[in-house]
Amino acid sequence: MLGIAPGVSFIDLTHEIAPQNIYAGSLALAESYRYFPAGTVFLCVVDPGVGSARAPIAIHAGNWYFVAPDNGLLHTIIEQQPVHAVVRLSNPNYHLSAVSSTFQGRDIFAPVAAHLAAGVPVQELGEALDVARLQQLDIVQPLVKQDRIEAEIVHVDHFGNLITNISLSLIPDFFTRPGVRLMLPAQQEMITQRRRFFAEQPDDPTPFLLIDSSGAVGIAVCNGSAADFLGVGSGESVTLLWNEA
Amino acid sequence: MLGIAPGVSFIDLTHEIAPQNIYAGSLALAESYRYFPAGTVFLCVVDPGVGSARAPIAIHAGNWYFVAPDNGLLHTIIEQQPVHAVVRLSNPNYHLSAVSSTFQGRDIFAPVAAHLAAGVPVQELGEALDVARLQQLDIVQPLVKQDRIEAEIVHVDHFGNLITNISLSLIPDFFTRPGVRLMLPAQQEMITQRRRFFAEQPDDPTPFLLIDSSGAVGIAVCNGSAADFLGVGSGESVTLLWNEA
Amino acid sequence: MLGIAPGVSFIDLTHEIAPQNIYAGSLALAESYRYFPAGTVFLCVVDPGVGSARAPIAIHAGNWYFVAPDNGLLHTIIEQQPVHAVVRLSNPNYHLSAVSSTFQGRDIFAPVAAHLAAGVPVQELGEALDVARLQQLDIVQPLVKQDRIEAEIVHVDHFGNLITNISLSLIPDFFTRPGVRLMLPAQQEMITQRRRFFAEQPDDPTPFLLIDSSGAVGIAVCNGSAADFLGVGSGESVTLLWNEA
Repeated sequence: MLGIAPGVSFIDLTHEIAPQNIYAGSLALAESYRYFPAGTVFLCVVDPGVGSARAPIAIHAGNWYFVAPDNGLLHTIIEQQPVHAVVRLSNPNYHLSAVSSTFQGRDIFAPVAAHLAAGVPVQELGEALDVARLQQLDIVQPLVKQDRIEAEIVHVDHFGNLITNISLSLIPDFFTRPGVRLMLPAQQEMITQRRRFFAEQPDDPTPFLLIDSSGAVGIAVCNGSAADFLGVGSGESVTLLWNEA
Repeated sequence: MLGIAPGVSFIDLTHEIAPQNIYAGSLALAESYRYFPAGTVFLCVVDPGVGSARAPIAIHAGNWYFVAPDNGLLHTIIEQQPVHAVVRLSNPNYHLSAVSSTFQGRDIFAPVAAHLAAGVPVQELGEALDVARLQQLDIVQPLVKQDRIEAEIVHVDHFGNLITNISLSLIPDFFTRPGVRLMLPAQQEMITQRRRFFAEQPDDPTPFLLIDSSGAVGIAVCNGSAADFLGVGSGESVTLLWNEA
Repeated sequence: MLGIAPGVSFIDLTHEIAPQNIYAGSLALAESYRYFPAGTVFLCVVDPGVGSARAPIAIHAGNWYFVAPDNGLLHTIIEQQPVHAVVRLSNPNYHLSAVSSTFQGRDIFAPVAAHLAAGVPVQELGEALDVARLQQLDIVQPLVKQDRIEAEIVHVDHFGNLITNISLSLIPDFFTRPGVRLMLPAQQEMITQRRRFFAEQPDDPTPFLLIDSSGAVGIAVCNGSAADFLGVGSGESVTLLWNEA
C-alpha cells in the first residue's frame, strides 16, 4: 500500500475480531468510523467466504470510503449514511498482478484501498452495483414488548463487559424508569444495579448495568470481567424488565 | 486525531496492559519514554476510574508531554523528570463535542493529545494543578534489610519472565556479591544461578536470575516461561539473600 | 527511530510470533517481504540468543534491507534474493550509547534500522561478513518419495489452519492428480477433500486440504480451527499420498 500511496497514514482499527465474526467486525466499524476524517478509506476484511461468489466491493458513503467483501460487513454504514457509489472490484488494473483465491485481503482489497487513498475515483474500480442488492447483515433485533425487551448478548468487549443489542434509543429513560433490571434466564441471574459509569460502582463484584460507549445496554463487573463472572458469552438470551406503571 | 493533527506519527507503545492494571501501565511507560524524541506526546489510558472524580490531566515533564487520568499512571514520570506544567483537562474546546461517561479515552484524552501534537500550549487545556496534589502510585517498595531484600514479583513480561521490584541500584554488585540467590517462599524454590544474558544459560529448564532491560532483578527460564514453569505471577513475595560477609 | 529518521513509516508486520520461534518469524517474513516497496528496511527480532556470540547483522538483498540477529531468521531471504552486502553491526556509532545485554532490539537493531532508513550506507554499519558463513535455518525438508511425500505441520495460522512444509511446487497438479489425500498417522486421520478456497467447502466440520496463500498444502475446517478440531500442532508428521498410476 505504501508503494501505491506513499505517505499514507495507517491506523489499525482492530485485529481482535474473532475469525469469521462478521457481526463483531461490523460493530467495531460502526462504533468508530464517524471519528475518522472525511476521505478516510476503511479497509475491512472479515471474510469467511473468500474466493466464493460473494463480490469484493467498494462504497463511498457519507464522507468516507469502505473496501470490503459483500457479506454484510458494511450493512450498518449503508443504513446510517447516504450512499454515493457502490462498485464491484472487477477492474484488475487495481489488483496485484497475481491474485490468489485465499488471500484477497492482500491481493485485491489492500491495493484497491491504496489506490482510493491515492485519489483513484471509486467508479474506476469496477462496475456499479445496486445498493439494494448488497448482502444484509443477519442482525439479531431485540423484540420490544409492552412490558419487556427480549434481546441477547451480541458482543464481549476487551474488558469482559457484556454488550446487548438493546440500544438506549429503545429505552431513553433507562436511568430513571422504575425497576429496570436485566434477566439472564439460563443463569437464573437478575442484574438490578444501574450505573452511569464504572467508578460509581462500589468495589464489590456485583454485576451492574451500564450504557456502553456505543449507546447499548451492557453488563459490567467492577475491576473484573462480567463474562467470566457470569459465565456468559455472545448469543446468550437476556430480557430487560421494568416495573409496570 | 489525524483530523486535528494531520501527518502526526502514531506509535502503539503497548496494548498488552491487563485491564485496570495501572502499575503495569506505569512500568511500560517508565521503561520507554526516554527513547522517544523531545516533544513526543504520550496518550496514556489505563483508567478504571473513568467517569469518576479523578481528574483527566496533562503534564509537561522533561522534554515530553503526557495526557492521562490522574490515578498514578504518571507517578514515575513526575519522580524522574522536572515538571514544567500540570493542568486539569477542563477546557471543553479541546474535547469532542459529545463527551460520554465511559469512553473518555476517545472523547477527551485522544483529542487533547492531538491538539498538543498540533502545537496547542499545555496551559490552554485547563486550569493549573499543584503537582504535589497528584495521585501517587501505590507502588510496592522492597524492604531492604541488612542481610536480605524482601520484595515481590511486580510484572510478568511477554516471554513469561518474572520481574521483581528490586532495582539493580539496590544491589549494584549483583553479579559479584557472593551467594546471591532469590527465595520464593510459597513455592519453596531457591533460584541460585545468575546470568548476564539469556543465551549464557545452558539449554536446560533450571530457572535463573538476570537483570532485565529496565534494570530490575528478574527470573527467566531458557527458551520457556518462568511464570509457567514456577507457577508464579504478579504479587508473589520473593526474598533476595546473599552470603553474610 | 523517529528521532533518527523523522517521518519514517512504521508497519507492524506481526507481533504474533511465539517467543523464540525463529522458524515462524522466518516464515512470516518470507511470505511478506516481496509486497513491500523497494528500499524498505525490515527490523526482524526473534532472538533467543540475545547477548550471546551470535552476531547482530544487516543485509542488503534484492531491493530490501534486513536487520536481524544471525540466527537463521534471514535464511529464506538469502536463498531467494541476490545478496549485495552483509555486515556485522560492529560500529557503535549507530547504536544507542548505553547498550544492554538483554534488549538489543532496542539498543542495536532499532537504531541501526532507523539509520538505514535515513540513508546511511549498509557498509557503514560494520565490517563485511561472508554470506556463506551466516547461520542457516534448521528447516525441516519434506521427503519426496515415488508414491508419497513425508512431511510435517510447520505452522498454525491465526485461523487455526495447519500449514505443512509441502510446497505446491512439489506437486503442481495437486488439484487434478487422482486420489490426493493427507494422512495424519498419530491421529489416524485421513483428509481427502481438496478445496480451491474456503467457501467451496459445505458448512460442515469435515477437515479439507487447500493451498494456503504462501503456496503450501494446508488443512482447514469450515468456519473453525483445524488445529483445535484435530488436536494437532506444529511438528506433527503428515504424509501426502495419491493413487498410483
